[in-house]
Amino acid sequence: MSPDHGPLLYEGKAKRIFAADKAEQVIVEFKDDATAFNALKKSQLEGKGKLNCQISACLFEMIEALGVRTHYLGIADENWMVAERVKVIPLEIVLRNIATGSLCKETPIDPGTELKPPLLDIYFKDDGLADPLLTDARLELLGLVSAEQRIEIETISRRVNELLKGFFEKVDLLLVDFKLELGINQLGELLVADEISPDTCRIWDMRTNDPENRILDKDRFRKDLGRVVDSYAEIHKRVQGISSKPRNYS
Amino acid sequence: MSPDHGPLLYEGKAKRIFAADKAEQVIVEFKDDATAFNALKKSQLEGKGKLNCQISACLFEMIEALGVRTHYLGIADENWMVAERVKVIPLEIVLRNIATGSLCKETPIDPGTELKPPLLDIYFKDDGLADPLLTDARLELLGLVSAEQRIEIETISRRVNELLKGFFEKVDLLLVDFKLELGINQLGELLVADEISPDTCRIWDMRTNDPENRILDKDRFRKDLGRVVDSYAEIHKRVQGISSKPRNYS
Repeated sequence: MSPDHGPLLYEGKAKRIFAADKAEQVIVEFKDDATAFNALKKSQLEGKGKLNCQISACLFEMIEALGVRTHYLGIADENWMVAERVKVIPLEIVLRNIATGSLCKETPIDPGTELKPPLLDIYFKDDGLADPLLTDARLELLGLVSAEQRIEIETISRRVNELLKGFFEKVDLLLVDFKLELGINQLGELLVADEISPDTCRIWDMRTNDPENRILDKDRFRKDLGRVVDSYAEIHKRVQGISSKPRNYS
Repeated sequence: MSPDHGPLLYEGKAKRIFAADKAEQVIVEFKDDATAFNALKKSQLEGKGKLNCQISACLFEMIEALGVRTHYLGIADENWMVAERVKVIPLEIVLRNIATGSLCKETPIDPGTELKPPLLDIYFKDDGLADPLLTDARLELLGLVSAEQRIEIETISRRVNELLKGFFEKVDLLLVDFKLELGINQLGELLVADEISPDTCRIWDMRTNDPENRILDKDRFRKDLGRVVDSYAEIHKRVQGISSKPRNYS
């Protein structure tokens, strides 16, 4: 199952990144490990890695076809992806269309409130600090991105949100919110990196109004709702209905 | 000791606000109650109320003389102040000149780092939510202030910072950071409200480099360093050296 790859470069909570033959590429393994609440909650979900890899591949191809640059190059095997090597910016960009989750714990905004325009939150990716929210002034102080990159990050993230929302709506899925990570390649270009999957998106099934059954994403794991992998498979099935088979890369 | 006043309008952690004879005024009692960590830590510090009232009065008069509008009208008694009645905006505006406290727990910025320009953080004043940090986008979403008021709040806060820093430097005190609250009076004008005291300012004694002894503010209470009221009295003594006796109001 495992394709040829070089040494392990980095291991995250849900993925391992390996060196590839070409210096400007990496091989990404999507793991079945599930974690939540800054890794306080952990489990193994058989089949999750494969589903997230395949869903991400479809979505990366779809947004690339509409002009968004990503690190994605192709699929190497079921849960293995080939990607451009990037320096990941240690920020989590969260776009919210509907208020839920931490936003409703940190503000008096009612869960379910539609956010127009979508709310963009930027968090500092640091497990030791529990991924704190950053104001623009704190972001500037940390000096992680230039003023131009800050604007480009927002433009890319809002564009990805509009595209994903449109894709999902076609198959009766509601994009509630999602997290993006961005990276800079060897040419200095800003690319969408990481993954776009039910681990990083909140997605509700518009074919039901039941507040628990409609949840098809990682909140099923966070909230112990069960049928986590089945729900990811349902998202995969619907996304396959509007995308072509992801390309193989070799 | 207690001046004539009407019914209690509001009781906070460190002050009580009473109605005055005139509808557009209130009488403020500064209490000896000390609280920290969202009121998880509580104590009584005899003499604190009087010192905070007198220090605030001096500082309000000094910034008013240089053009900053405040709710302060005058002293009614040792720990009693007369103020203009305002609708307090439920925001805590924090200006930081030196990194310390929560900033260093929420970012990798080292304690003691000089912040140039001073960092402005806006928190939502809500004990139930533990006063969360607000980004500009979240502030806009909450709709508590207009875009014009947001700019005016920043202008006033930075001006108060420059003035206070200058006053304190004259008497060998370093203004590390401080919190402001603002209110809107019956004419719709934005005024500095609440208090400006060692409860709401971090102030270091520049006559020593000892990292504990130099602390003259509420951090002595938070960190159990002792001599809290003595330190407040030291600040009062030095501020008296550069101000006139606060006016009585009747």
